[in-house]
Amino acid sequence: MLAGGAGFIGSHLADRLIDEGYRVVAADNLMLGREDNIQHLLSNRNFTFIPLDFSLYEEAHGLFQAYKFDTVFHFAANSDIQASAHDPTRDLKNTFLTSSNLLECMREFQVKEIIFASSSAIYGHKPGVKISEDSGNLWPVSYYGGAKLASEAFIASYCYMNNMKSWIFRFPNVVGGRLTHGVVFDFIKKLRKNPTSLTILGNGKQSKPYLYIDDLIDAIFHIWRNHQEMINCFNIGVDSQTTVTSIADMVCEEMGLQNVQYFYSGEKVGWKGDVPEFQYDLDKIHDTNWKSRYTSDEALRLSIRRILTS
Amino acid sequence: MLAGGAGFIGSHLADRLIDEGYRVVAADNLMLGREDNIQHLLSNRNFTFIPLDFSLYEEAHGLFQAYKFDTVFHFAANSDIQASAHDPTRDLKNTFLTSSNLLECMREFQVKEIIFASSSAIYGHKPGVKISEDSGNLWPVSYYGGAKLASEAFIASYCYMNNMKSWIFRFPNVVGGRLTHGVVFDFIKKLRKNPTSLTILGNGKQSKPYLYIDDLIDAIFHIWRNHQEMINCFNIGVDSQTTVTSIADMVCEEMGLQNVQYFYSGEKVGWKGDVPEFQYDLDKIHDTNWKSRYTSDEALRLSIRRILTS
Repeated sequence: MLAGGAGFIGSHLADRLIDEGYRVVAADNLMLGREDNIQHLLSNRNFTFIPLDFSLYEEAHGLFQAYKFDTVFHFAANSDIQASAHDPTRDLKNTFLTSSNLLECMREFQVKEIIFASSSAIYGHKPGVKISEDSGNLWPVSYYGGAKLASEAFIASYCYMNNMKSWIFRFPNVVGGRLTHGVVFDFIKKLRKNPTSLTILGNGKQSKPYLYIDDLIDAIFHIWRNHQEMINCFNIGVDSQTTVTSIADMVCEEMGLQNVQYFYSGEKVGWKGDVPEFQYDLDKIHDTNWKSRYTSDEALRLSIRRILTS
Repeated sequence: MLAGGAGFIGSHLADRLIDEGYRVVAADNLMLGREDNIQHLLSNRNFTFIPLDFSLYEEAHGLFQAYKFDTVFHFAANSDIQASAHDPTRDLKNTFLTSSNLLECMREFQVKEIIFASSSAIYGHKPGVKISEDSGNLWPVSYYGGAKLASEAFIASYCYMNNMKSWIFRFPNVVGGRLTHGVVFDFIKKLRKNPTSLTILGNGKQSKPYLYIDDLIDAIFHIWRNHQEMINCFNIGVDSQTTVTSIADMVCEEMGLQNVQYFYSGEKVGWKGDVPEFQYDLDKIHDTNWKSRYTSDEALRLSIRRILTS
């Protein structure tokens, strides 16, 4: 079962699961997810889509009653960190309660595997530190990060108490086709409206690693297949980074725009809850013989093209 | 405001707050807390008690509407780890949702200080490791530990997003008068029923530090007064440890019982979700010039006497 199956990452995972021959029940509340993302799968007899809100226990429970699942892919969340800044209950419900409800259903219906889309946001703001999986002092600076860390905590306790296995993947910024928000999406939207100037939140120097969606999905399958601890926790990322101004440059270039004037809002942090710079220690996943195929710049370039042509 | 004010630790905290001249509104769902614990405070005009369930947002919200609070002491939880092993929703509701509801009320009503009763349970099972505040790999092995860690995660994000301050105290096993569960409480109960034999869960060699309640309350006040970071996180503990068999010996001695036959259930872990041994690194709190007055053995001896004479 794939929770969040119509979302940006969830729908790409659905594609891959179907490609690999799995039978997939995908569910999504369609708040950020879109039926467009899975339209092409609806005719596949191995694929079922059910609109459903996992933050409501009864709805989750009904689904587990109707089907017998081997594995839960939990990719349902309020992934729009900015949007929840003024309404933390969005993350309580859509990022955390989706997790606790899924775990409770797994316990009752004896489903023993969960693959969880966690996030670099659980680490909080750690400038100048290479963040590895066993880094401590986990103080998230966004409600989203708080809800993801809270989900991890519940997953750990449910795994131990019920002999489940979990694969916890801490994602960096992920880009690719079907993006629904984030900096690439925003810039394209703004420049389509006004191709002469662009307002950039922060000072433009915020620098982060951007991973291409295909690389992310590859990493998930690679680790899920080859690692069988009770808790398999991995940072997924890419060694290189890209600044926000570079992204703006790439978007302008790909859109064929010249002399676009940039206006910077100026703060170091783009918006409250954002982490302006961060760097993963990727030794753990590199030691498993996985490495991203695309650099951060390449990932962004590919995504911009995908979005512009879709 | 003191959430969980009728509980074992909460009611001792209420005593101290009243002693120090604060006006205290204590609230408790009276699931584990008992009105007996605060009976002596009810006539004090600085003390108000309100039976209330913080796991229900509306009830929490009503309280914040009725009073203007400076500080929230969040000591409400399902502290009975064993009891929730078969019903994790107890910890979801009483240990976690109490936290998220309190934080949401604090955000709306602009309350800027939270003192939180966290737990060594957030660290999970780390044999042979001295656990410090910045230890990583936080994989709790009980629903209680999961819900406490989830609460910390939410506290961190609310603090950052709303300029709140938090004091997060990771308690060890705490003992003293008014205990409502745990090994000391259980042994006394069992031996009162049958003074000739005692069943001990595990192999009796589980060894933990037990802190006396007065020491705990002292530490809380000491840190709250002297530390003003956004997040002030401290292990509170005692250097020494006591085995379960030693506790049984002390209880028998204090009850004047001789030749009690011990029956061990035998497993290394007393019950699923228990952490059979653990050791705190207490450098951080010791560096603030706080140290527990009583050893683990002394703490237990004092508690046994308190419980036997109450």
